Amino acid sequence: MALPDELQELAAKVRNWGRWGDDDQRGTQNLIDADASRRGVALVEHGRHRSLAIGLDEKSPQQGGAPGRIAPLRTMLAVNESYTGVEGDCAFNDDTVVMAMSAGTHIDALAHCTYGGQMYNGFPAERVTASKGATRCGADKLGPIVSRGILIDLPAVKGVERLEPGYAITAEDLDAAAEHARVTVQAGDVLLVRTGQVQLFHGGDTYAYNHDSPGLSTHTVEWLHAHDVGAAFTDTYIYEVWPPQDWAAMMVVHMIHLRDMGFVQGQNFDFEGLAADCAELGRHEFLLTAHPEPFTNALSAPVHPVATF
Amino acid sequence: MALPDELQELAAKVRNWGRWGDDDQRGTQNLIDADASRRGVALVEHGRHRSLAIGLDEKSPQQGGAPGRIAPLRTMLAVNESYTGVEGDCAFNDDTVVMAMSAGTHIDALAHCTYGGQMYNGFPAERVTASKGATRCGADKLGPIVSRGILIDLPAVKGVERLEPGYAITAEDLDAAAEHARVTVQAGDVLLVRTGQVQLFHGGDTYAYNHDSPGLSTHTVEWLHAHDVGAAFTDTYIYEVWPPQDWAAMMVVHMIHLRDMGFVQGQNFDFEGLAADCAELGRHEFLLTAHPEPFTNALSAPVHPVATF
Amino acid sequence: MALPDELQELAAKVRNWGRWGDDDQRGTQNLIDADASRRGVALVEHGRHRSLAIGLDEKSPQQGGAPGRIAPLRTMLAVNESYTGVEGDCAFNDDTVVMAMSAGTHIDALAHCTYGGQMYNGFPAERVTASKGATRCGADKLGPIVSRGILIDLPAVKGVERLEPGYAITAEDLDAAAEHARVTVQAGDVLLVRTGQVQLFHGGDTYAYNHDSPGLSTHTVEWLHAHDVGAAFTDTYIYEVWPPQDWAAMMVVHMIHLRDMGFVQGQNFDFEGLAADCAELGRHEFLLTAHPEPFTNALSAPVHPVATF
Amino acid sequence: MALPDELQELAAKVRNWGRWGDDDQRGTQNLIDADASRRGVALVEHGRHRSLAIGLDEKSPQQGGAPGRIAPLRTMLAVNESYTGVEGDCAFNDDTVVMAMSAGTHIDALAHCTYGGQMYNGFPAERVTASKGATRCGADKLGPIVSRGILIDLPAVKGVERLEPGYAITAEDLDAAAEHARVTVQAGDVLLVRTGQVQLFHGGDTYAYNHDSPGLSTHTVEWLHAHDVGAAFTDTYIYEVWPPQDWAAMMVVHMIHLRDMGFVQGQNFDFEGLAADCAELGRHEFLLTAHPEPFTNALSAPVHPVATF
Repeated sequence: MALPDELQELAAKVRNWGRWGDDDQRGTQNLIDADASRRGVALVEHGRHRSLAIGLDEKSPQQGGAPGRIAPLRTMLAVNESYTGVEGDCAFNDDTVVMAMSAGTHIDALAHCTYGGQMYNGFPAERVTASKGATRCGADKLGPIVSRGILIDLPAVKGVERLEPGYAITAEDLDAAAEHARVTVQAGDVLLVRTGQVQLFHGGDTYAYNHDSPGLSTHTVEWLHAHDVGAAFTDTYIYEVWPPQDWAAMMVVHMIHLRDMGFVQGQNFDFEGLAADCAELGRHEFLLTAHPEPFTNALSAPVHPVATF
Repeated sequence: MALPDELQELAAKVRNWGRWGDDDQRGTQNLIDADASRRGVALVEHGRHRSLAIGLDEKSPQQGGAPGRIAPLRTMLAVNESYTGVEGDCAFNDDTVVMAMSAGTHIDALAHCTYGGQMYNGFPAERVTASKGATRCGADKLGPIVSRGILIDLPAVKGVERLEPGYAITAEDLDAAAEHARVTVQAGDVLLVRTGQVQLFHGGDTYAYNHDSPGLSTHTVEWLHAHDVGAAFTDTYIYEVWPPQDWAAMMVVHMIHLRDMGFVQGQNFDFEGLAADCAELGRHEFLLTAHPEPFTNALSAPVHPVATF
Repeated sequence: MALPDELQELAAKVRNWGRWGDDDQRGTQNLIDADASRRGVALVEHGRHRSLAIGLDEKSPQQGGAPGRIAPLRTMLAVNESYTGVEGDCAFNDDTVVMAMSAGTHIDALAHCTYGGQMYNGFPAERVTASKGATRCGADKLGPIVSRGILIDLPAVKGVERLEPGYAITAEDLDAAAEHARVTVQAGDVLLVRTGQVQLFHGGDTYAYNHDSPGLSTHTVEWLHAHDVGAAFTDTYIYEVWPPQDWAAMMVVHMIHLRDMGFVQGQNFDFEGLAADCAELGRHEFLLTAHPEPFTNALSAPVHPVATF
Repeated sequence: MALPDELQELAAKVRNWGRWGDDDQRGTQNLIDADASRRGVALVEHGRHRSLAIGLDEKSPQQGGAPGRIAPLRTMLAVNESYTGVEGDCAFNDDTVVMAMSAGTHIDALAHCTYGGQMYNGFPAERVTASKGATRCGADKLGPIVSRGILIDLPAVKGVERLEPGYAITAEDLDAAAEHARVTVQAGDVLLVRTGQVQLFHGGDTYAYNHDSPGLSTHTVEWLHAHDVGAAFTDTYIYEVWPPQDWAAMMVVHMIHLRDMGFVQGQNFDFEGLAADCAELGRHEFLLTAHPEPFTNALSAPVHPVATF
């Protein structure tokens, strides 16, 4: 069987199947409701924005680590091409792209991870097919995020530049960071969990960035569930701690988050500039808007998340 | 030369080169400032959202009309693939995509259209190359949009289901729609210009949708400039009216908007649900959030725009 | 069950499972042996060549008929790009391509079609996976073809420009064409079955070309088996006759050829110039060389077949 | 200017412009004539084949070294997909691919390299465009190769496992290898220049394979010209020696071969098995068939070359 007993118990405890109806394909996205949106919007004071995305280009963290995942390859269909052929006339530039869905900053579909032959809400894993993709729980089912975002600034709390690779974030860490942020986490809030790992990517060491990393863990699952967090995003490639806490339960956070909780998660976010903003402005909450690209039946989706103060 | 005299005069009149500095690559995106963002945010009351994007899949409006533009082809890299190979264990689903940048709802880079050997702000057209794309005025230079959105509901104003193909929208139309919306357009507002043309796409007649269409025209250029509109998006494929008002000045709106004004424009938006929302709620202004995917040096970029009431 | 009784009997009669060993993944490619190669080579007299491929470009017969199959989209990675940046210095042009494997002239992998949960030689159908492709009977297992090619010129035999759409070729037709060609078909010969259907493609009517077409049929299966034909290629998109002879046994030729016989087949060949050559030279046999591109675990493979007289 | 004086002289000496007409786009492919084809065919005795291609898959030598060049990514469009949905019924497997044209064993288009604003036969370099590719001297203009192949087995001649990285092959080396092969090189012969470098690729060290390598050089240009060699292929990634003999004349062999001689060249061939065959059979000449995939206006083309004894 997929998980050791105690993790099965954990999974059962946080399982949200049926919570929003038997047909639900959105999981904790349901928690990001009108109240959460209004709570986020109410935080806008300066009209100042911070993009939380990394660039989509050949420097993508996807460099062959996972089979078939390729960095965005953008090529030109036309370069200053004139319809008339006359020099100086109107000319167009046009392009095309091929990429792994998860090449950059992205959000996971709930269908991304299954076990026991089932995905979130009990849909059969076979509802994902080679020709049609995720006919249940595709990334396009999630929809827009407009909510309060909270920076969980773990390096700031711990007084380090970045967390150590392999560090499993704890519930206590989340409590400390929320306290540091002077916020009480409410249903539908979105946590931006900063580890600082993305510094390695910016520094050009994509391999280090992609491999051993700090991350969410079995210690944080219940906390996220108990607080009815709407979504949590990280500045790492793997999302959960790596190497795994237990090799016999590899990818356990993906398993429980996506399949049991229906939890909205995403990776390759960049919180470095955001941390500076928060420090400067003296607050760690803001409006977060993040609308995944609506790729039909996709297993993940590119998203450009933006914090507004 | 590229344009008849009177259109050259028009272009000169609305030209924004140097307005935001000689290095500026963002054009009217600069108008979408803190005030505009706060104005938009202040409109949120219900916490209710409306996606303005069409789905990204094989039904895309890109069906070979423009050379090389292909609909999104999303294929699977893994279907319920287990690392362990044991039935029931954790399994992953993963995918990849190839598509024209402009395959769905997108925003144009200012570098998308050039003439006279120059793009916006006087940058040489040669700054777009086959290997690097738009090294000036790429779509990634624009950045997030958080502003007041205004629905310009032309079919509602005119009492028709949708505008006729080939109808050139006028300044009077925009005035009438703003009045109908009971708004005074301010600097940095974003206009969502509804023609109803997207009904053809939803009805399955992609060919009709892609070809003859109503659209913005030489009649609307000065109005958009005079009102310091931040951006205007349409529910058509071509954006401007088609067939052109004058075949000798084909694509003139693209030419003047992108190259002279540095105007932020986008296509294949869907305003049908939005129009219903506005009618129901009795207002035509809302928070608009639309963050183009940050493809480095891209000539256009997918965007998922969302209206929040 | 997959096939009506009499077709099950036919399938059983021609089934080659185990004939070349339990591990064999090459089927009738095994018949194209040293003798066949020498027989082909011995026919070269003039050193004159005829390409039997259609061009690989946006005019490909793949135009969305089958889900996800796209025409080749070739884009440039660099256009006269100099390493030094100095005008006139060495400059390179480079390109990339995305396409359906079957976009042009191609050969089918034996794994392309399965039924009853099995592919050729009894391998489980599950040996084809989303992440790895055809781990058994991939197109790369077939290898080079060097053999005697025989033009089966059905329009010439029947005195028509091309066969009618929907015409099911018969064993008698093959006999008549072999007699017309003045050849005795031997083990390992490769039949180039000309119907003339490709004229529709050349004429620009891709839709007509892709749909109703003449083709091989249940009438020809035993003949091909009895003569130990090495491979048979057609100048059509579907290969077998369309509409099917019996809708309850749709794609029956693919089923029996690929899964039961392990028969090497291919489509979108062009025999128009070849027919002219044969008429001019007064013979219908020649050296055929056709080496499928070695895409690992592919379900079909592009091939550039060439006849040499 | 592009080349030092003595290399300009060399280029002038071997320049074939106009030799086969002012419209010629095939260069030395013209030398592979009926005689050459018959000479090749006459060598077939055993009907025994050797593929000279490397596999097309994610292990491709294209690993990001050259901008935008990606390894073949083959994904499934359908996995055992039944039209009827009934278990056991006819089911299809289908796939698609994206790749750099030069991802595997390939042939260069004559338009691949230009200098002084011109390509082979004096065509303007501008005849290559972003939207259309090589409208002159594309890879599709070359056509099939059926000729005598000669293994130039340099490691065998020199008694080493493989040539040293950085070794510039000389005219004397070619003479010695031809003598070792006991052949007199004739017009239209195709040289398969074995360095052994591909052993590094097979050993998994793609980086070493792709970088410093032995190769053809300025010493071999005149020899190839004087002997009217039809084409020469190597078992290396770069083709010519690397690092360059003179950094001021980087890629000089590409420059002179492609632009001045119109010489047919190709890379990433595999001659390890061939060398064993030749040693076993006691001869180094054979039939070579190699038909580049007919990608319209391509800058290089995949090819599956086969030696037949």
